Amino acid sequence: MAAIKGIVGAENVLEAYEDRYCYTYDASAVTAGREGTPALVVYPGSAAEVSALLVLANAHKIPVIPRGAGSNVSGGSIPRAGAMVMVLTRMNRIVIIDRRNMIAEAEAGVITADFQAEVEKLGLFYPPDPASKAFSTLGGNVAECAGGPRGAKYGVTRDYVLGLEAVLPTGEIVKTGARTMKCVAGYDLTRLITGSEGTLAVVTKVIVKLLPLPEAKKTLLAVFADMDRAAETVSQVFMAGVVPTTLELLDNIYIRNIEEYVHIGLPVDAEAVLLIEVDGDPAVLDKQAGIIARICREQGATEVKVARDAKEADELWVARRAAFAAMSRVRPTVIGEDCTVPRDRIPEMVRAIRAIAAKYDIIIAVLGHAGDGNLHATILTDERDREEMARVEQAAAEIFTATLAMDGTLTGEHGIGLVKKKYLPLEMGEGGMMAMRAIKRALDPNNILNPDLI
Amino acid sequence: MAAIKGIVGAENVLEAYEDRYCYTYDASAVTAGREGTPALVVYPGSAAEVSALLVLANAHKIPVIPRGAGSNVSGGSIPRAGAMVMVLTRMNRIVIIDRRNMIAEAEAGVITADFQAEVEKLGLFYPPDPASKAFSTLGGNVAECAGGPRGAKYGVTRDYVLGLEAVLPTGEIVKTGARTMKCVAGYDLTRLITGSEGTLAVVTKVIVKLLPLPEAKKTLLAVFADMDRAAETVSQVFMAGVVPTTLELLDNIYIRNIEEYVHIGLPVDAEAVLLIEVDGDPAVLDKQAGIIARICREQGATEVKVARDAKEADELWVARRAAFAAMSRVRPTVIGEDCTVPRDRIPEMVRAIRAIAAKYDIIIAVLGHAGDGNLHATILTDERDREEMARVEQAAAEIFTATLAMDGTLTGEHGIGLVKKKYLPLEMGEGGMMAMRAIKRALDPNNILNPDLI
Repeated sequence: MAAIKGIVGAENVLEAYEDRYCYTYDASAVTAGREGTPALVVYPGSAAEVSALLVLANAHKIPVIPRGAGSNVSGGSIPRAGAMVMVLTRMNRIVIIDRRNMIAEAEAGVITADFQAEVEKLGLFYPPDPASKAFSTLGGNVAECAGGPRGAKYGVTRDYVLGLEAVLPTGEIVKTGARTMKCVAGYDLTRLITGSEGTLAVVTKVIVKLLPLPEAKKTLLAVFADMDRAAETVSQVFMAGVVPTTLELLDNIYIRNIEEYVHIGLPVDAEAVLLIEVDGDPAVLDKQAGIIARICREQGATEVKVARDAKEADELWVARRAAFAAMSRVRPTVIGEDCTVPRDRIPEMVRAIRAIAAKYDIIIAVLGHAGDGNLHATILTDERDREEMARVEQAAAEIFTATLAMDGTLTGEHGIGLVKKKYLPLEMGEGGMMAMRAIKRALDPNNILNPDLI
Repeated sequence: MAAIKGIVGAENVLEAYEDRYCYTYDASAVTAGREGTPALVVYPGSAAEVSALLVLANAHKIPVIPRGAGSNVSGGSIPRAGAMVMVLTRMNRIVIIDRRNMIAEAEAGVITADFQAEVEKLGLFYPPDPASKAFSTLGGNVAECAGGPRGAKYGVTRDYVLGLEAVLPTGEIVKTGARTMKCVAGYDLTRLITGSEGTLAVVTKVIVKLLPLPEAKKTLLAVFADMDRAAETVSQVFMAGVVPTTLELLDNIYIRNIEEYVHIGLPVDAEAVLLIEVDGDPAVLDKQAGIIARICREQGATEVKVARDAKEADELWVARRAAFAAMSRVRPTVIGEDCTVPRDRIPEMVRAIRAIAAKYDIIIAVLGHAGDGNLHATILTDERDREEMARVEQAAAEIFTATLAMDGTLTGEHGIGLVKKKYLPLEMGEGGMMAMRAIKRALDPNNILNPDLI
């Protein structure tokens, strides 16, 4: 302990039980304290300190759980008893926003929304927008390869990370990638680390690509009496050559509960709504909005509303962002799954989710980043009710099996974590698991970094 | 040998010396036969055959050099004596082009241009466009993470590969990634294998993302009397919020030699030209072309010509594509370097290249995918002239050092291969090299797959 305090300073170490207990959970439904209480919590201030801590942990085989805000929903930052929790939030400096080259460099602990606000001041744009962006960190976003609604057009964190400064479990500080738009020198350690959930390296700095800030945007709300028609509309929009920024699908359970919460006049009898945004040059937005509105009507939308101004559009997005909060008023435990299927399997997937909900007599609402096939099947339950939780477990397992049978993936943007760990072999297969474990052993021979995750 | 013929059939094995000799070189300046002649050349017909061959090679520790067309320019597919060259060109089936989900699946040996032609018939678009696309294969493009002129707007191969079927050196067939737009299940083996130059796995199938085919495009040619102003224009275009599809920079040596070759009236006295293309909705192209033309004039362009029609645009692109061929008329050996710097360092990099050319008294022409800072410093020489080649070597080394000093990378799209292997540690550092070698050892314990590359 003295050695650790020597590295980061005594003021950057938490030892009290009540402090340590606060680091036993994240935003997943893994119960606080379930895996055990860490031995200590450290807040390093530099890559050199991270390195010194890892060298020490590696020598003493102490498990290390790196984290930012701990806002992941997959159980990606739950410590085991006796572990060292390493919180990166002190390292929160934006090093540079390079307007001429449209890149930026920031420490891992910078909060994503803060970073976005700064780059937007310069007319630039960092698209990844996880729901947690108001508190999650860039380093955490990299560790989870976070997505968000704008993924339909702009992709995910992986698509913007050009390079990293990261510390290997054995203490080496590595610089991966480059400050350039293209780089194929050596293995793509940047993307290997991105999405590795803190099991291969501790990310300390991030170099990202930025885009010009889109000039304008336009938001539409389309109301459907039939879920299948809403889902089919998603495919038709893309097939018409329009790539919307965001294409969100909400089912009736979501619509009703959001409306009860925010009172903005959502159609509570609709079976589904699509919330669609396009952005770019004003000259094309009207045209694109027109094409989308036409397709919605052709597919039987009972109403298509184009937000008249930024205020009306903002209202719709406030409603969308209130979705999870609205749900937590229904039942105390909200489990947001994140199965992703090819776009045209969405109707089939929604039907499967409904059948599974009926079979196990539980409530599952559906909200999706439908533009990329990413469905958040949202299980409303109560973790204190063991009998119901057993049914929830079985239902989740059936959702996963159904997803894989539809050429889908267990997780589009949330990560595997502890929550889906036992299902991962179903997707990766034996060869894939073998490769993953071999890479983990190669970079982390003593298995100290987030050791329970793979 | 009997076992190998048993796996792929005798008709798919080449044993004669003259046949094997044809596989001792690729499109790099590594002299044919320099590293040795392979023991045999095999053409597997399926992933199962690739797997059986690798199991055998692994058991007998036979080096295996996988390749497609062998059109890489980095020495990425040069065998050592006694190796097995594995050519994937028989596996050339497009499995599916899924228009509804805008994805496609194809075997590794499909030729990139053929694939692009097929998807374009359906109104879809596969952007990566390496200069070799008329003969290079999708599998080879993945192995090299190939780029191309359209990278300025659309990125590189990595940005389109959703998943792979690949065979590990120990014979396991793995399926990585997914058929979905987003996937964060497990380590990103897809991108780890992409760009690994055939050292980690043999790619047998590729699943890629497609885009809607852009409705229209517009091509401009801007003529400059001053290289610095041309290079500065590149940054200014992006800062004005315009992301061109392609932004190519050609210096006077290129301009003169291309004109002598194709006779289309290029300005042979210009110090530089920019060849710029924008694509997308016709409604914005005129606006974007107008902004670009204005910026070019502000930066001192002596002429800005907008191609009047597709024919005139095609002529310009034919000229651009003839660039390397035109150069090979000047001297017998053309070495295309591929250093990449942050966009606003282009003027400085061009000056550095010129100073190095003068210092070593060699001819270096400059052509660049300037939109992404990717400069092809093109050394015109004669590999039979040992004294000159020694100077070429020194000049190349200085170019690499200058690139890294400008926050650049040794290779934007060509790969490291044998050609730049000794320089890679300068970019990756000790920690990066350690991580790479650990991963290589973990997946290829007997070091059989393209063993001389790392």
